[in-house]
Amino acid sequence: MTVRIYNLGMRISDIGEFGLIERLSLIVNGDLIGDDCAVVEIQGSKLLLTTDALVEGVHFLKDSGPESIGWKAVSVNVSDIVAGGGRPMWILISLILPDIKVSFVERIYEGISSACKFYDCRVAGGNVSKGEALIIDVFALGKTSRPVGRGGAEPGDLLFVSGTLGDSRAGLELLKEDRKSYEPYELALIERHTRPTARIDYANHISKYAGASIDISDGLLLDAEHLAKRSGVRLEIDSSRLPISEELKRFCAERGKDPIEYALRGGEDYQLLFCHREKDMNPFLDMTVIGKVSEGTGVFVDGDRMGGGFSHF
Amino acid sequence: MTVRIYNLGMRISDIGEFGLIERLSLIVNGDLIGDDCAVVEIQGSKLLLTTDALVEGVHFLKDSGPESIGWKAVSVNVSDIVAGGGRPMWILISLILPDIKVSFVERIYEGISSACKFYDCRVAGGNVSKGEALIIDVFALGKTSRPVGRGGAEPGDLLFVSGTLGDSRAGLELLKEDRKSYEPYELALIERHTRPTARIDYANHISKYAGASIDISDGLLLDAEHLAKRSGVRLEIDSSRLPISEELKRFCAERGKDPIEYALRGGEDYQLLFCHREKDMNPFLDMTVIGKVSEGTGVFVDGDRMGGGFSHF
Repeated sequence: MTVRIYNLGMRISDIGEFGLIERLSLIVNGDLIGDDCAVVEIQGSKLLLTTDALVEGVHFLKDSGPESIGWKAVSVNVSDIVAGGGRPMWILISLILPDIKVSFVERIYEGISSACKFYDCRVAGGNVSKGEALIIDVFALGKTSRPVGRGGAEPGDLLFVSGTLGDSRAGLELLKEDRKSYEPYELALIERHTRPTARIDYANHISKYAGASIDISDGLLLDAEHLAKRSGVRLEIDSSRLPISEELKRFCAERGKDPIEYALRGGEDYQLLFCHREKDMNPFLDMTVIGKVSEGTGVFVDGDRMGGGFSHF
Repeated sequence: MTVRIYNLGMRISDIGEFGLIERLSLIVNGDLIGDDCAVVEIQGSKLLLTTDALVEGVHFLKDSGPESIGWKAVSVNVSDIVAGGGRPMWILISLILPDIKVSFVERIYEGISSACKFYDCRVAGGNVSKGEALIIDVFALGKTSRPVGRGGAEPGDLLFVSGTLGDSRAGLELLKEDRKSYEPYELALIERHTRPTARIDYANHISKYAGASIDISDGLLLDAEHLAKRSGVRLEIDSSRLPISEELKRFCAERGKDPIEYALRGGEDYQLLFCHREKDMNPFLDMTVIGKVSEGTGVFVDGDRMGGGFSHF
């Protein structure tokens, strides 16, 4: 039996999103909670379940294109399914809507529809509720032959990421400048923020080879912390190996900023962080070795213990 | 190919929740959309999927007890699963939270936990996002041996409801009076609103015998319209047969109101409306014959064609 003592004054911002999730998972015996997906077995089939919401003003700006919002809402959930070693099958859409224009909602749904075609999954149903702010909450159900969690990293593994890191944060900063026009390289960065693509092309690779995997939604450092903690290992990252896009290099060069900072702490890239043995590398995927797994705890960059990342609270 | 013409000025309130859902389901080829649950088959298992959200200020008042909010959020989803002929297995919880007290969120989760124990299902996972208003969005996955939708009513069937109708609306009105004290019969009505119980005791009966079934969340008339429309039948309701609780009778008698109106149009009772042959009645369930299914269209009460119900938009 667990005895919990309520601290009546404590607010969510005092303990953060992850502190809150830990406390809540105690209440529902949440040995299941803590990976990108929950794994449930039904008559021999291994299913992955996940949910992620996009909230107006928090995850997207009010004047974002509605198709992009719909696309992104599906993509962030598919990203969790892929990180869990699966492929998406069914999506449910729960919309919280102010009394906005019908055409705006229809265009969100067109983004949802394009994303489902791209990821080869289907909308099984949904719900519509009235509310003050626009929220698109998505539930995804996927299948897997071998679920992958955050807890299976082993010393001796190499640490990999897919794609490039930090682009989404640069794109968000550009969006917030709210300019009348942008250069092509800037538009490319904005697109990475507003229309991220879940790495469905990694689904087989993750399921087949990854010991542990997580999608990078809160920034590399913070997500690496989750993986290190749950696996009980140390992650050693070599900052000179971090994959940086040409666009981000130019963005940083023109503004006197450090692209490594963007790659380490930028959120919402929806790339994958995963580990396995060197021999299982796949030259046909855009994966980069960024470091290795060793015995110990914590995340180290160029030998220094790191902390922090990105939280909405 | 569907050509859709956008009416740029039209708002959700112009076409209503159900008009919106019809339009959205076209976009995602939603032959699946329109029942209480979506039915998907995975390697021979028939699964039911559903989602329903509770929004602060719309579905519950800010000072509702947090345990009740958690209980209700699970119950409204289990109600859909039962109406679909199934039993709940797994729940995902997506919370949208302002920066409120941690203890408040923990107490919501305790309500969720009690409900899951009662309905014999488990929380598989969840998500936490920041937002302005408190929203508890639940996704439920159930199993069924025979899915039941809204489309299977046949002329010759009798029409049944479980329990009593209209109590929840009376309870909501009492809550809004915001009095310092309430009489016991009033508290019973308030409890039906704040802590509704999904009719899990009907799960076998619905799955085994019901031709069509729907849970009464928007009021008997409106939900009967959904069932009639989808089944392509006429539903004939005899108002003298509507099951009214002693508490609602007293509530109405003391206020000069008509309990039949509450039973016909009150929302959020989470009782079941279903139909099957007379021979399949079960004397051990609190089911009441309220009318019959015949050829034609629409919902008739005492011979008159009815319309309308309850919508949050």
